[in-house]
Amino acid sequence: MMLINKLAILGVGLIGGSLARVLKREAACATVIGFGRNEANLKKAVELGVIDNYAMDAAEAVAGADVIVLATPLMSTEGLLLSIRDCIKTGAIITDVGSAKGSVVDVARRTLTDEQLHNFVPGHPVAGTEQSGVEASFAGLFEKCLVILTPLPQSNGKSLDLIDKMWQCAGARVVIMDVSHHDDVLAATSHLPHMLAYALVDCLAAMQERDELFRFAAGGFRDFSRIASSNPEMWHDICLSNRDSLLKVLECFDTHLLQIKQAIEQGDSQGLVEIFTRAKKARDEYTETYGTVTNINAIE
Amino acid sequence: MMLINKLAILGVGLIGGSLARVLKREAACATVIGFGRNEANLKKAVELGVIDNYAMDAAEAVAGADVIVLATPLMSTEGLLLSIRDCIKTGAIITDVGSAKGSVVDVARRTLTDEQLHNFVPGHPVAGTEQSGVEASFAGLFEKCLVILTPLPQSNGKSLDLIDKMWQCAGARVVIMDVSHHDDVLAATSHLPHMLAYALVDCLAAMQERDELFRFAAGGFRDFSRIASSNPEMWHDICLSNRDSLLKVLECFDTHLLQIKQAIEQGDSQGLVEIFTRAKKARDEYTETYGTVTNINAIE
Repeated sequence: MMLINKLAILGVGLIGGSLARVLKREAACATVIGFGRNEANLKKAVELGVIDNYAMDAAEAVAGADVIVLATPLMSTEGLLLSIRDCIKTGAIITDVGSAKGSVVDVARRTLTDEQLHNFVPGHPVAGTEQSGVEASFAGLFEKCLVILTPLPQSNGKSLDLIDKMWQCAGARVVIMDVSHHDDVLAATSHLPHMLAYALVDCLAAMQERDELFRFAAGGFRDFSRIASSNPEMWHDICLSNRDSLLKVLECFDTHLLQIKQAIEQGDSQGLVEIFTRAKKARDEYTETYGTVTNINAIE
Repeated sequence: MMLINKLAILGVGLIGGSLARVLKREAACATVIGFGRNEANLKKAVELGVIDNYAMDAAEAVAGADVIVLATPLMSTEGLLLSIRDCIKTGAIITDVGSAKGSVVDVARRTLTDEQLHNFVPGHPVAGTEQSGVEASFAGLFEKCLVILTPLPQSNGKSLDLIDKMWQCAGARVVIMDVSHHDDVLAATSHLPHMLAYALVDCLAAMQERDELFRFAAGGFRDFSRIASSNPEMWHDICLSNRDSLLKVLECFDTHLLQIKQAIEQGDSQGLVEIFTRAKKARDEYTETYGTVTNINAIE
């Protein structure tokens, strides 16, 4: 179903590329224009049929676009909005795919006009793999994934509706959430696990016997550490963009790990069994309820 | 190839049951007798063809056995050895499957005779799933898994050789390691990740919005937290049996997580990117080198 005449994807990587692919496959848009810093990457995207053409200038890419998707690293959002704001067509809908929403909304409030802000629909597809770049993109990435939209009080209902339809067309299930609530929930369920995976791998890699350790690391470690292969720049941006919520859950995690540590130190058998049993129960309930729903690609 | 005339499996759970299954499949033993606390479980094991018969008394189970495999939780090892030591046939080989080796060796030194100690070969199949019990056992569990044997200075070469052959027959790759080195390596690669998974799930489960958090938890969380479904009693035993090594690596992990936390607090972009890049590089190297070798069942 045709939803969008001209679509501008700013940042043709895993997420931007996969969205372009699925919307083209579903014939939901007439033309897709890409923008990015790396021309070789954009040429590749055209070759792969992910986008129809590209511009090396963001303002040029958004000219005449009906929907503009910001899919560059979070920290580049401000510069990007400043460079395009004067070239956005009246009534064009702007959305983004950032993993933290509070910082993006702050930037949008600072840089966009009131009219543009009415048509701004902040979004976050909870999808990804530890791969990045347009070559890793595929049309099925969002199949059955959650997409969280965090509209502003002034967001236009029609704009929200179109972005909702766009993600449904990509196979996703759309959920509406408050901006700060989104950031708290994602800090706990995604950003915290990434920090633990990075810290675990960094800790093992720093040990003298690192080669041997990795040799004996079993599947638990492999699963656990997979997300430490994620893009460092992207995660740097997420950490600093969602600083407060992330520090809060890191504090909470510390408390729980300290309880385990103290129980081990003190030989507190009952305490240990209680903690492990409680965690197992929660994890088993999670698997029963959501185990088969969650998309295998939804790692972020 | 027939290796063992009479095999006694003490503890017919996931590991003991899977070992019995594969040795029977390979016709490596003539008779398998099981022992356990739960008679219904042992009856089930006979029904499933995992063992040929069972005894509710450990001493009875080991009578006449050529190889005795201790596959009960670590903390039960002392009581078990005390109850069987007077009934072990002269020359019978004793081995175990515990995830921590120092504590098992201490117990063996305290309870076994010198002659029995000569024939004791401590072992650890680095295999398992988050399931437990004989119903979860299967003959392919050890296929391509590592089994670490930690013979004592006085261990008899012939006994070591037989246990080595037994695990090879189960499809495993056998590695010889020093007892305390084993405990350090496993603390870092297996016991630490389990503690992190338990603490993460416990932390999220304690939050007010737990149901919502679990709803939005993506694949990263799912993979990361899978091992929190492991058996609480077993992990209680492992923690307390490998206390010193585990506390040491928990300390090391804390230092690395604190570095990340401080970098986020201080907005230290360079520090964050450095840590994430270093971890990604180490994890990518691990995947390249061992990614295809590790058995999917090797979660412990």
